[in-house]
Amino acid sequence: MPPAASGTRARQLAYLKGRAHALATADEIGGWISDCEAAEMPEGSHEAANIRGWRYRYDREVKLPIELVENFAATTSKAVGIWQDARKNSDFKIFAPVLEEIIDLTRQKADAWGYDSEPYNALLEDYERGTTAKQIGCLFDQLEPELVGIVNQACDRPVTSTLPVGDYPIPAQQTFNREVAEALGFDFQAGRIDTATHPFCTGLTPGDTRLTTRYLTSDPTSSLFGVLHEAGHGMYEQGLLPEEWGHPAGTAVSLGIHESQSRLWENHVGRSQAFWATWLPRAQELFPPLRDLSLDEIVQIVNTAKRSHIRVEADEVTYDLHILLRFQLERALLTKEIGVQDLPREWNTRFEKLFGISVPDHAHGCLQDVHWSFGLLGYFPTYTLGNLNAAQLFHAAQNQNPAISGDLATGNYATLLAWLREKIHQPGSSLLPPDLILAATGEPTNHAYHLSHLRNRYLT
Amino acid sequence: MPPAASGTRARQLAYLKGRAHALATADEIGGWISDCEAAEMPEGSHEAANIRGWRYRYDREVKLPIELVENFAATTSKAVGIWQDARKNSDFKIFAPVLEEIIDLTRQKADAWGYDSEPYNALLEDYERGTTAKQIGCLFDQLEPELVGIVNQACDRPVTSTLPVGDYPIPAQQTFNREVAEALGFDFQAGRIDTATHPFCTGLTPGDTRLTTRYLTSDPTSSLFGVLHEAGHGMYEQGLLPEEWGHPAGTAVSLGIHESQSRLWENHVGRSQAFWATWLPRAQELFPPLRDLSLDEIVQIVNTAKRSHIRVEADEVTYDLHILLRFQLERALLTKEIGVQDLPREWNTRFEKLFGISVPDHAHGCLQDVHWSFGLLGYFPTYTLGNLNAAQLFHAAQNQNPAISGDLATGNYATLLAWLREKIHQPGSSLLPPDLILAATGEPTNHAYHLSHLRNRYLT
Repeated sequence: MPPAASGTRARQLAYLKGRAHALATADEIGGWISDCEAAEMPEGSHEAANIRGWRYRYDREVKLPIELVENFAATTSKAVGIWQDARKNSDFKIFAPVLEEIIDLTRQKADAWGYDSEPYNALLEDYERGTTAKQIGCLFDQLEPELVGIVNQACDRPVTSTLPVGDYPIPAQQTFNREVAEALGFDFQAGRIDTATHPFCTGLTPGDTRLTTRYLTSDPTSSLFGVLHEAGHGMYEQGLLPEEWGHPAGTAVSLGIHESQSRLWENHVGRSQAFWATWLPRAQELFPPLRDLSLDEIVQIVNTAKRSHIRVEADEVTYDLHILLRFQLERALLTKEIGVQDLPREWNTRFEKLFGISVPDHAHGCLQDVHWSFGLLGYFPTYTLGNLNAAQLFHAAQNQNPAISGDLATGNYATLLAWLREKIHQPGSSLLPPDLILAATGEPTNHAYHLSHLRNRYLT
Repeated sequence: MPPAASGTRARQLAYLKGRAHALATADEIGGWISDCEAAEMPEGSHEAANIRGWRYRYDREVKLPIELVENFAATTSKAVGIWQDARKNSDFKIFAPVLEEIIDLTRQKADAWGYDSEPYNALLEDYERGTTAKQIGCLFDQLEPELVGIVNQACDRPVTSTLPVGDYPIPAQQTFNREVAEALGFDFQAGRIDTATHPFCTGLTPGDTRLTTRYLTSDPTSSLFGVLHEAGHGMYEQGLLPEEWGHPAGTAVSLGIHESQSRLWENHVGRSQAFWATWLPRAQELFPPLRDLSLDEIVQIVNTAKRSHIRVEADEVTYDLHILLRFQLERALLTKEIGVQDLPREWNTRFEKLFGISVPDHAHGCLQDVHWSFGLLGYFPTYTLGNLNAAQLFHAAQNQNPAISGDLATGNYATLLAWLREKIHQPGSSLLPPDLILAATGEPTNHAYHLSHLRNRYLT
C-alpha cells in the first residue's frame, strides 16, 4: 500500500469491522440461534455442530462494544505502516507507542470476553479454542530443555553437503513444484499457485484455494518447501465439506490444526528420504546442477540445522525455540509482568539464553514479525502446536494404516491424504481442536512425537 | 480463477450486485436526495453537482428490477469462463448461446431504463453520459474514410528502423519506467506500479492508485507504453478532489474522458520527438543495445504502423478501425439488424473491408475481446472518443498556454499536468463529458485534431 493510503485504509477497515460486528450481533440473529437450539438436532450431526458454533461466536461477539472493534481495527491498520518503518530503521522507539496502544486494546478485549486466571486465555480462543495458556505453558516447559539439547547437537554437526551453486530457472521450479503439489493431492481444478513476497494460502470458496510461493534462482528448495507447506494448508481447505461451506461444520477449526497440515506435508513428507527417492530423478532432469547429487546428499541438504535470528527463515529443529520465546514474552506483556519498554532487553536476554547467540539489532530481534502490529497476540503458540500435532498425526496415520509407509515410499500419497481427510478435514469445526487430536490419535497433544522425529532425523 | 470456482463466483456476484442494488435504491435514499434538492445549493457548487449526480444515479438504478440485476451478474460471471474456453478453441459455437443470453439481458436493461430511438443510447449512459449512438455514428462515419486513407499510407511506408535485438532486463525497465512516470507527475507516495498479465489502472482511494504493466525482455517499449498509458489514467485519479472522494464531484466522469488522459500521455507525450530527446540518453545508460540508436531512429521505432488482427496490440494509427468495427456490430446486434449467429461472418467481412487483410480464425476475430462476456456493450466507442479527445485536449492545452510546448521539450511536464488538473481532473463529474470537452477546448469533440496529429506524425 502506498504511504498516503494508510489513513483512508484505517477508516475503511474500522468501518467494515464495525459494520460486520453490528450485523453479526443483531438481536434477530440471536433469535434465530435460539430457535435452532430449540429444534434439538441429533448429537454428532452437522446441524448440531453448526448451532453450537454459531452460539459460541454470537455470544463471544456480543461481548465486544462496537467502539472497541472499530478502534482496534483503526489502530492495527495504522500500526502496520509504523512497524514497517520501525523495522526498516531497526528502531524500537518508533513502534513502542502504538504497540502499547495495541496491548492496551487487547487487554480491553480480553476483559470484555472474560477469562479464568489470565487474559491470554481469552485471546487463545480466537486461534486455538479449548486450549489454555497454562496448558501450553506446561507443554512448552517440557519441550524447552529437550529441544535446546537437540538444537545444540544438531547445529554442531558438521555440514557435509551443500546445494550445488548454479542457476535454477524459475519456469523449471514452477514445473517441478506443480508436479509435486499435484502428486500430493492438491487439486488444480479448484486452486492455483501464484508468486508473492510472503508465501501464504487462502481458501476463498470450495472451488478456489490459492497458494503463493517465492523464488530464488540460486535455490529451488526455497520455493518448493513454500509450496509444500502452503499445499498442506490448501489440501485442508479443499478437504472441508463443500455443502457446509461457511458453516462451522465446513470451516477449518484452528490455526494449530491448520499448521499441523502444512508442517506434515512440508517436513514429514517433503523432507523425508522416501520423498526424495521418488523426486530426485525428476529434479535432476529439470535442474542440471543437481545431476551429480546422491539421494543421501539431497536429504542432508534439505535437513540442515542452523541457529538463526529470523523465525521465518528457521529450520525444523530451531523453529520452535523462536515460538517459545514469543509465547513467554506475550504472556508476560499481557499480565504486565513486563512492560513494552522492557521488550527489547527481555527479547535479547532470553534469545541469547535459548539460542546461544546474541541479537545484532532489533530488526533481527523483537521487530522482525508483523503479528503484533496486526494485533495478533496469542497467535504464535499455534505454530508450535502445529509442529507437535503434525508429528503426532503422521505417527498415528502410519500406525492406524500400515499401508501408508509403503505407499509414501513409492510416491503414492493418496492413502495418507485419505486418512487426513477423514480424521481432520471432514470434521471441520465439529470438534474442538484438543478433542479432534484425541479422536484422531487416541491421546492429547504430546510433545514426544515431535522430539522423537527430530532425534531420528537429526541425531542419528 | 480455477475452473471449479465459477459456480460459486457467479452466485457471490449475483448476491453482491443484488444487495448493492437494494441498498442503493432504498426509499430512504430517495428521501435524502429530495431533501438535498429542496436545499437549493448554488449552481456551480460541488454540492449542486453531487445532488444532480446522486439523483441521476438513483433514478436510473430504481428502474432496474433486482432479478434482472442478479441474473445479469450471474450470467456474465459464468460467461467469462465460457468465453475463455471458446477463444482458446477459436470456436464461436461455444460462446454463442451465452452471448445471446447477454444481449437479451442487455436489451432488457435498456428497455427498463428507457431510451430515444435505439437501445444503444441507454447503454452509452453507463460509459459516456450525454452522448448518443447517432452522434458517435456521425463522428465515426466522418472519421472512417479519412482514417482508412491514413492507415493505407502509413502502413505502406517502408520500415527503416527496428528495435535492436538484445536483452532488456526487467529491473532496468522498472527503473526507467518509474523514473519516467515520476517525471510526468505520477505520485508514488499515493500509488504503485505492479506486474500483471493485462496492464490496468485502478484508483482505490485518494492515496492509493495502482498501475500494472507487463514485461518483454526483448522490448522495453512494451512495458514503458503500458506504464505511460496507465499513469495517464492514474494521474486523472490522483487529480480528483480528495475531499469529494466517493461523491460525483470527486469521481472520474466517463470512460472516454479517462481514455483521453491515458492516450494523451502515452501517444502525444510519450511517442513524441521531444520526449525521446529528453529520455533517450537515460534509456541508453540503462539498455546497452540502444547505445548506437539516433533520436530519429527511436522515434520511428515507437511510431511504426502495421495492420494487425488484435485490437490490444494495435498501434495508434490502426487502433480506431478496430473500434469502428465493434461499434457498428454492437449497434446492429442490439437493433437485431444482425443476429448472434451472423456475428463471425459479419466481423470477418467488415474487417477485411476496413483493414484489407483477412481474419485467420475467430480467436483473432470476433472472440478476441473479453468485453461482451462481461456484459460491456456500449463500452468500445469510448476508446476512440478517448483518442479524439486526447488530440483535441493536447492541442488546446498548448494553444491556451504557449509555455507548454517549450516545457515539454525540456522534460518539464508540470505545466501540461497543471492544465489537465484544472480543466479535466478537478471538475470530476460536475460537468457531463461533452460539456467538459466544450469548456476545456471551446468546441465539441472534433475528429480533425486526431487526424491532423496522425498525418503530422505518420505521413510527413
